[in-house]
Amino acid sequence: MYVNEFIKDLYRVKFHEERDQVLRLDMNESPEGLPLDFVEEVKRKITPEFLATYPQKNRLVKQVSAHCGLQADQISITSGSDEAMRLAFQCFGERGKKVVTVTPTFEMYGVYAAMFGMEHVPVGFNADFTIPVERLLEAIDESTGIVVILNPNSPIGATYTEDEAHAIVKKAGAVGALVIIDEAYHYYYVPTFMPLLAQYENVIVLRTFSKLCSIAGLRVGYAAGNARLIDYLERSQSTFNVSNVGLLFAEEIMKRPDVMENQRVSEQEGRMWLVRQLDGAGYRVLSLEGNFILFKPKGNARDIVAALKEQGVWIRDYSSGLLEGYLRISTGHIDYMRRFWDAFTALD
Amino acid sequence: MYVNEFIKDLYRVKFHEERDQVLRLDMNESPEGLPLDFVEEVKRKITPEFLATYPQKNRLVKQVSAHCGLQADQISITSGSDEAMRLAFQCFGERGKKVVTVTPTFEMYGVYAAMFGMEHVPVGFNADFTIPVERLLEAIDESTGIVVILNPNSPIGATYTEDEAHAIVKKAGAVGALVIIDEAYHYYYVPTFMPLLAQYENVIVLRTFSKLCSIAGLRVGYAAGNARLIDYLERSQSTFNVSNVGLLFAEEIMKRPDVMENQRVSEQEGRMWLVRQLDGAGYRVLSLEGNFILFKPKGNARDIVAALKEQGVWIRDYSSGLLEGYLRISTGHIDYMRRFWDAFTALD
Repeated sequence: MYVNEFIKDLYRVKFHEERDQVLRLDMNESPEGLPLDFVEEVKRKITPEFLATYPQKNRLVKQVSAHCGLQADQISITSGSDEAMRLAFQCFGERGKKVVTVTPTFEMYGVYAAMFGMEHVPVGFNADFTIPVERLLEAIDESTGIVVILNPNSPIGATYTEDEAHAIVKKAGAVGALVIIDEAYHYYYVPTFMPLLAQYENVIVLRTFSKLCSIAGLRVGYAAGNARLIDYLERSQSTFNVSNVGLLFAEEIMKRPDVMENQRVSEQEGRMWLVRQLDGAGYRVLSLEGNFILFKPKGNARDIVAALKEQGVWIRDYSSGLLEGYLRISTGHIDYMRRFWDAFTALD
Repeated sequence: MYVNEFIKDLYRVKFHEERDQVLRLDMNESPEGLPLDFVEEVKRKITPEFLATYPQKNRLVKQVSAHCGLQADQISITSGSDEAMRLAFQCFGERGKKVVTVTPTFEMYGVYAAMFGMEHVPVGFNADFTIPVERLLEAIDESTGIVVILNPNSPIGATYTEDEAHAIVKKAGAVGALVIIDEAYHYYYVPTFMPLLAQYENVIVLRTFSKLCSIAGLRVGYAAGNARLIDYLERSQSTFNVSNVGLLFAEEIMKRPDVMENQRVSEQEGRMWLVRQLDGAGYRVLSLEGNFILFKPKGNARDIVAALKEQGVWIRDYSSGLLEGYLRISTGHIDYMRRFWDAFTALD
């Protein structure tokens, strides 16, 4: 029986461990989540009839497009920004062409490149942890189909200047390539490249409700772009690609900028507190533009991850490349940062 | 900029109307949904931390595989059975090959055939509304990549005998084609072709939590098959393809066969009540194997749909083919059937 050649040997990382009883600082989720009273208020709208009804996205499309200063036909709501990536590759990723990204960056771009028969061209970060903009631009040529920039990048939270973004989009446009601008960590980092959509036709901007909006479990994100590109994403979607509970929470969050602002302030306080502790203990901290930080511990990173895991504190380490031996800690409310710091400092 | 040739002109039906204040008998959802006390009990488990955490599918995989008498690696949980269809086409649908289905049947199979560059070969129902098994078998040849059988079919709820299913799977296997057996309406209709999985390697069975389990809004379904095929579906999935609230409700429903049985009995009572009314009024009712029925009204079907819509009762009509002039009514608890019947009989 036929099996798609690009899926046959596709390597995938799957997450099978139960994480509900641990301090989850390993996947850049919000450790505390949304305020309890807000969640309870939204839950009141979940009735048996509501659950039994197929989802309807129009309300959220209107809210998000107004929020972004765009028209409704410039927004496509997706199952996390992950589905937006996948559909962008399916619609605009020409088989055999190249996908240019920096490395390290979000792993799914490499996965989707392989899944849709494209060649991933990873451009290594500079040794000083800055973005290799010149080499990124050089890597874009006639064989390029898609260029991906995360702003801020993850896991190294470096950012692009406006001039750099324009230069990348222009060069990509000249060779007929799409630029995916992934703003998953928007709100933690305020600048946005959304205004580029008014000037260039070869750009889509992705955002998610999983990070600041703290509903990673509900799988809601969106793609913004010109109406022609968004129409293709919509055509390629399944009919009901996002759950109605996800849509409901996203709608209610959009109505409450005060809740979003509190989440932002709370995470920033927690992150800055942790950075001060690390600074005071002599660590150099990287990545201050998302809800995560990186640092190189004195001991072995893998051993530290294992020792903390035994105490129910999950963080992440890197075992190769520029970040070899580094730890990544997702950041959130100061209470969770204290719990991490107490467990970490007690290790010696 | 490159756009995928199969998506460029793909025709899609989108549902943009608000449906939350109407009697929804147009999309084969459960009109009443799950029992209120059950829903409230499950909702207690939805905490801020839960919503902020990426979903974890293992628990539901274990429950579903036990329920089906299969191993855990024979089940893939998907975003409705719709995503299972999509992934099956992406993994096993060879570009240029044929997709054989009966017609009318669930529309998304034709959409996915086109989306993945396959040719849809629809085999018309017999004039007496029986399945054209002989012609379906004849249509399967060396150029066939996928054969789809819905059991019961939708919208004409005809069913396949065990012999017919074996004959189709064998002929498909001989030409290297996959058979997708869609059991969306399982539970309303008890027989299953799940046992075929033990005998044939070219079969996957799809099921959904949207129908009897009454959580269409949460997008949960699954594919069952041999471990090799399921592994490909898993590789081709996005990392977190189903929301954790969807997984939670599905898990809780699986723990409560009493709730499922009550849903089944309630729908059957309502459906049989409606059929008696229609019989008594001289209508011939089709399709008694799912949570829907078909009949040909005396007046114009489209006008009836429009008139009922004005009263907040939504049903569906067919404007072409064998079902031209027919109405389809989703069925559920007798209270909702009475509301439909009262509105329908008041039209004259």
